[in-house]
Amino acid sequence: MPDWSSLLRPELADLSPYVPADPPDIEVRLDANEAPHNPSPAVRDAVARAIARTAFERYPDARMRELKSRIAERTGARADELLVGTGSDEVIAILLTALSRPRDKAPQATVLAPTPTFVMYRVTARGHGQKPVEVPLDRDWDLDVPAMKRAIELTRPNVIFIASPNNPTSNRMADDRLMAVLDVAAESLVVVDEAYADYAGASVRGWRERYPNLAVLRTLSKVGLAALRIGWLEADAALVREVDKVRQPYNVSATSQAAAAAVLAEAWDDVRAHVQMVVRERGRLMAALREVSGVDVAPSDANFLWIATPQPAGEVAQALAERRVLVRSFARSGGRLANRLRVTIGSAAENDRFVEALARVLGGR
Amino acid sequence: MPDWSSLLRPELADLSPYVPADPPDIEVRLDANEAPHNPSPAVRDAVARAIARTAFERYPDARMRELKSRIAERTGARADELLVGTGSDEVIAILLTALSRPRDKAPQATVLAPTPTFVMYRVTARGHGQKPVEVPLDRDWDLDVPAMKRAIELTRPNVIFIASPNNPTSNRMADDRLMAVLDVAAESLVVVDEAYADYAGASVRGWRERYPNLAVLRTLSKVGLAALRIGWLEADAALVREVDKVRQPYNVSATSQAAAAAVLAEAWDDVRAHVQMVVRERGRLMAALREVSGVDVAPSDANFLWIATPQPAGEVAQALAERRVLVRSFARSGGRLANRLRVTIGSAAENDRFVEALARVLGGR
Repeated sequence: MPDWSSLLRPELADLSPYVPADPPDIEVRLDANEAPHNPSPAVRDAVARAIARTAFERYPDARMRELKSRIAERTGARADELLVGTGSDEVIAILLTALSRPRDKAPQATVLAPTPTFVMYRVTARGHGQKPVEVPLDRDWDLDVPAMKRAIELTRPNVIFIASPNNPTSNRMADDRLMAVLDVAAESLVVVDEAYADYAGASVRGWRERYPNLAVLRTLSKVGLAALRIGWLEADAALVREVDKVRQPYNVSATSQAAAAAVLAEAWDDVRAHVQMVVRERGRLMAALREVSGVDVAPSDANFLWIATPQPAGEVAQALAERRVLVRSFARSGGRLANRLRVTIGSAAENDRFVEALARVLGGR
Repeated sequence: MPDWSSLLRPELADLSPYVPADPPDIEVRLDANEAPHNPSPAVRDAVARAIARTAFERYPDARMRELKSRIAERTGARADELLVGTGSDEVIAILLTALSRPRDKAPQATVLAPTPTFVMYRVTARGHGQKPVEVPLDRDWDLDVPAMKRAIELTRPNVIFIASPNNPTSNRMADDRLMAVLDVAAESLVVVDEAYADYAGASVRGWRERYPNLAVLRTLSKVGLAALRIGWLEADAALVREVDKVRQPYNVSATSQAAAAAVLAEAWDDVRAHVQMVVRERGRLMAALREVSGVDVAPSDANFLWIATPQPAGEVAQALAERRVLVRSFARSGGRLANRLRVTIGSAAENDRFVEALARVLGGR
């Protein structure tokens, strides 16, 4: 048997395999920022019809013409500015595979992100032999522009990922700060990850003309279609054309392409209505949490809440799990995250169940 | 705007974007080694039921437990020996992302394949900054063991890809030659790509106990389910555990996982019957082609034929396309491929149409 470690990228030794949380007997799952409800009959019918029309024996359209055209219609992007992947995760991996030329004589390319943020930027950078650089967000979880400026000048990142609304902190970055970063990052690709933008009612994609180094990452995973795995980047067409060379030609299944295109074309109003329902429920849940003693909830532009608890978050999450409610604790990150929970906005019944369980846990009842 | 070329992997400048052949007005598509028929009602029903059961709003199972268990049942592999991807293309990309440590002081890792063969080994190696090494197959399109041995000792590849049955030459590699290569490649991962093994009725997966450096790559794309994009590697569990760290956790959509698992569990007999139909049609098509003057057809272990034409293959393929029949010409590769066509075995009617068109083209009628 070969000594596998002599062939494997050395960074892998320090990476842990991804193991999703899966404690037994959970009844209310508020840990993954999924949409709370099964999609509407119109969405399900659009998907079922699209899949029934699919020629299973044929390869997908490598150019994804139908899907790109539907995305373009809904977003205003041009089809040649779109790179579509199996979830935004794959788009991130494709970007880092392509944009990997080290600067000057550095041994590896650098990937920068303000933190805390979505973990896949760092994990994918390391898995691709690149150097992740993290710049802490300020005390209000917004961009620390001077610190970002110093880090960009020092490390010259090929790619900067900025999630806005940010996961797990739930806030959009302030427009003026984001613009300030775009100004100093003119030699980098700045990917604003708008996975949660549907819940913010705002996007920076209109800035692309002013900032050609700006790319916008989107996904259908947060609006009720996580099962399909559809994510896309909107970026400068010249960049998309080059990056597309490392995309596997059949990287998105024909069934997912057809299903997503059908939902975008035929049932998007239902998706929007679902988003509005979650936004209303977000207001109701925040109001209810204000009544829970010792809890602090940050304003949210996303489909989840960023909650400070009066006790260590790991203990709170564990006690909630014993009450069959699963939320995400950031206690293991320590520091200012030690008392933080990220809680997905569920259905009204799920949210009530969570508030009741949290009140009992914190009240020691 | 950043100078994108200063960020992009330099190899991309020489790579062309993948553009599938798509001439107008084609009626008979025999260019992509797909299965000829729409799957049976039982297969389509299994897929439709599985997708109807899927919770669209939830992320897929990152561990793919159900699908791996179904693959294990059908193949005899253990679930912890399986790495599943969106087609074998993605599995190849995951392998090269992980197994990328250069040997000794070399600037890049080496990937070796006997050629002509499936193009994605070379394309993926280059897209990941690795060095593809190609060793010509012998005059019977079988492994040239002395040449392979020299190349392996000289270039010390991390990964060796051997397609068997090979695409485009349609033959299995001789067992004794494959064993000889496995013996000299004890410090490499040897991936035998059995994408077409269903049509050969033979597999080397039983050799894994004797050769721990052997991995077997499989796919559902050639047996009627190309739309779903499901491929998998069966390999040493210790290797799979490490390589799995660079897999995106939700790399296979929930719909494709559910559909593939359902077909494997509920409708596999129909898939097997479909394969047998294609094998019978292969015999009939070969017999018919023997009657076409000047044509030579190699014995085939796959769902396509490797055909030598008396005229340059590019001209023949062009003339066939004008008769609305699409086949794959290898003329642009030159040399001994200049007069070679790869023709997928279609339905009986499609095969008849192809034979008739070919006879007219070659007869100048």
